[in-house]
Amino acid sequence: MNSIQPVNIGLLGIGTVGGGTYTVLTRNAEEIARRAGRPIQVSFIADRDPERARALSGNACRITDDPFAVVADPAVDVVVELIGGYTTARELVMRAIENGKHVVTANKALLALYGNEIFAAAQQKGVIVAFEAAVAGGIPIIKALREGLSANRIEWVAGIINGTTNFILSEMREKGLPFAEVLKEAQRLGYAEADPTFDIEGMDAAHKATLIAAIAFGIPVQFDKAYVEGITKLEALDIQYAGQLGYRIKLLGITRRRQDGVELRVHPVLIPEKRLIANVEGAMNAVLVKGDAVGVTLYHGKGAGAEATASAVIADLIDVARAATTDPDNRVPHLAFQPDQLHDLAILPIEDAETAFYLRLTVDDKAGVLADITRILAGENISIDAMLQKEAEEGKGTTDIILLTHICREKHANAAIGKIEALPSVKGAVTRIRLETLGG
Amino acid sequence: MNSIQPVNIGLLGIGTVGGGTYTVLTRNAEEIARRAGRPIQVSFIADRDPERARALSGNACRITDDPFAVVADPAVDVVVELIGGYTTARELVMRAIENGKHVVTANKALLALYGNEIFAAAQQKGVIVAFEAAVAGGIPIIKALREGLSANRIEWVAGIINGTTNFILSEMREKGLPFAEVLKEAQRLGYAEADPTFDIEGMDAAHKATLIAAIAFGIPVQFDKAYVEGITKLEALDIQYAGQLGYRIKLLGITRRRQDGVELRVHPVLIPEKRLIANVEGAMNAVLVKGDAVGVTLYHGKGAGAEATASAVIADLIDVARAATTDPDNRVPHLAFQPDQLHDLAILPIEDAETAFYLRLTVDDKAGVLADITRILAGENISIDAMLQKEAEEGKGTTDIILLTHICREKHANAAIGKIEALPSVKGAVTRIRLETLGG
Repeated sequence: MNSIQPVNIGLLGIGTVGGGTYTVLTRNAEEIARRAGRPIQVSFIADRDPERARALSGNACRITDDPFAVVADPAVDVVVELIGGYTTARELVMRAIENGKHVVTANKALLALYGNEIFAAAQQKGVIVAFEAAVAGGIPIIKALREGLSANRIEWVAGIINGTTNFILSEMREKGLPFAEVLKEAQRLGYAEADPTFDIEGMDAAHKATLIAAIAFGIPVQFDKAYVEGITKLEALDIQYAGQLGYRIKLLGITRRRQDGVELRVHPVLIPEKRLIANVEGAMNAVLVKGDAVGVTLYHGKGAGAEATASAVIADLIDVARAATTDPDNRVPHLAFQPDQLHDLAILPIEDAETAFYLRLTVDDKAGVLADITRILAGENISIDAMLQKEAEEGKGTTDIILLTHICREKHANAAIGKIEALPSVKGAVTRIRLETLGG
Repeated sequence: MNSIQPVNIGLLGIGTVGGGTYTVLTRNAEEIARRAGRPIQVSFIADRDPERARALSGNACRITDDPFAVVADPAVDVVVELIGGYTTARELVMRAIENGKHVVTANKALLALYGNEIFAAAQQKGVIVAFEAAVAGGIPIIKALREGLSANRIEWVAGIINGTTNFILSEMREKGLPFAEVLKEAQRLGYAEADPTFDIEGMDAAHKATLIAAIAFGIPVQFDKAYVEGITKLEALDIQYAGQLGYRIKLLGITRRRQDGVELRVHPVLIPEKRLIANVEGAMNAVLVKGDAVGVTLYHGKGAGAEATASAVIADLIDVARAATTDPDNRVPHLAFQPDQLHDLAILPIEDAETAFYLRLTVDDKAGVLADITRILAGENISIDAMLQKEAEEGKGTTDIILLTHICREKHANAAIGKIEALPSVKGAVTRIRLETLGG
């Protein structure tokens, strides 16, 4: 190796991912140096609990409870931000950039909300802000999108990018249990947080989908335009009916480029069970990318966990070590496209999204009902792809009808559903879940 | 963009992949320039058939039938070698390097055989030889291994890296047809070449596995040490029995790091059908990578075809455009590890490989036969994981026994199989297929 100057890391936060990062950097130090051409070492750790840091690192590096001391330290080359949240983390990242330090972060919330400001500051200072760990944990999907598939006009990306909700949906399907019960089990097993809102309401997936949309299409980060719907209202019954029709229900983050704008949405989706991604179970993540040249590629692996996320953090550190001497104009741009080349393609409102639909209706068990429904759908130019009518339960007088539609605009589906719900023979609300074929 | 100097490409060969590369570079020129920060354009094409080149490019670039004119042209920045073979291609690549040009190639055979010499020359000249397109077509697996997973000690890689054989195996299973018949169909459909030897005998997969082993473990390219076994002897019957036991048979390229060396082998493998990779059908490719930190990640997509392969070629071109101004010591090393940091970990002979086995025996339908067999296996310390005994066909007097063993050394399996075949109650040869669980 020509240059044996080590890269000095300032580590902010030594919790799950921070601890994993320290552990892997230490355990694989030789392997990493063989690749990077120089050692990468943690020289300064900030944590609320300095004792925890000391237990991990012994006397191998300096330790403080003041993260601002780390971002100000001239001996630190790269700041690794693993504190989370938007307040202190934002200030620390901006301060690190001001001080001319490269930043590696796993903080999707921070980048989804303040990415434009952060990347602009980094650009101006000629430093790198790397964030592979912010999306899909250890799966190198940011690198794939930004570099591996750079020849392509990306058409769409769809991913299972939240392990908690995928675990819950897998359990609901396999055991036929309701959401609330499975959530409790997930909390007991450590797959869901004590306050699971961020995961189950789709916010975490939406942060990640926002970053994916930016680097896939070369647009600014626009979390406020994302449509977000979680899994809390999903019923085990619909998972079961979907199964009978050959589909699995997954919470997907989806972004698709259209002539008139970009779709950016997180919600439950029916997927044909023959697709590999429909068979991704438990807390695993998987991302599908459709490029015009390459077709559909799939990336699958652990989306969370100490060492899986550390794998992404450290890959970024090695990239930073390599790119540090590169003329900033020749580095991989933060959002995949040159900063003066971002497009202002609008994020479309959900009413303009185009998907197929799964519709479940409870109807009077009598002649003519289906004719009324199909007439309404036809009136909105929505055609039917498949239908499942359940036998009426004895003495109940009503029956369930499940319809799969072809692709239509969401606003047309909304209009049709409104009219269908107004039919006297239709009981209660129509259950509606979007459906994507995710074909090549 | 600060620098608007275009990158000039010299394209050697304008067949399937060359044509796809030209097409995608042209179609996505704006998108590519937005990413790379400068245009990437083909300035010089060499092809045996200059008319074919002219039909594609019109008057947009110079055309010759002499590839040596292209590698000697001072106006060419990067040579894209898509001629194939080891003779002229080798000379052209070495000449391009001597002339200080970066090289992008899809030629796995060339690199698997002469990679050490080529990478050493490139290192000395300070130029890049990029080869994403050489393995798994459009799937960015080289980048994932070399950069995305660079934090990890890679433990093993296992992949479906030949589409022709995967197509044949899929058809054999789905239709229950014998190899020879499906091969003919594959040839008719264009999934197999007129002379399919390279694919069906596993050579193509072995070239790719050799490159994967080098970048996964930081060892030189050693194709001559690879164990190669194709699919020509696979019987539809075994695919069927494997299915009954919950397995699929795939041709895998496998490389695994052990204490005492590296396994590098291509052969048919039983895989539990619950693994995603067992469900990769048709001409698709998929690669599993096990890293110590990240666990198992999967990469799936088209492994061949004009534009899928072009996607990888052009991603390399964009990388080269970016890295061209980087100090060569800071670039991603050709074989993932710094050239002075390669290990001399030996490639192990197949006798020392460790796998489980599927064994099919035809035996006399009488008492005591199974006892003899299990005694022999126990004597070689091979334990049995599962067994399937078929009912004897009426009047035939023999029956099929299928055994799945636990993991053992290949030489112990060989010894046991030799003794089993010597039993008077065992008819003919034992059919033996290796089995991998590919778990995390």
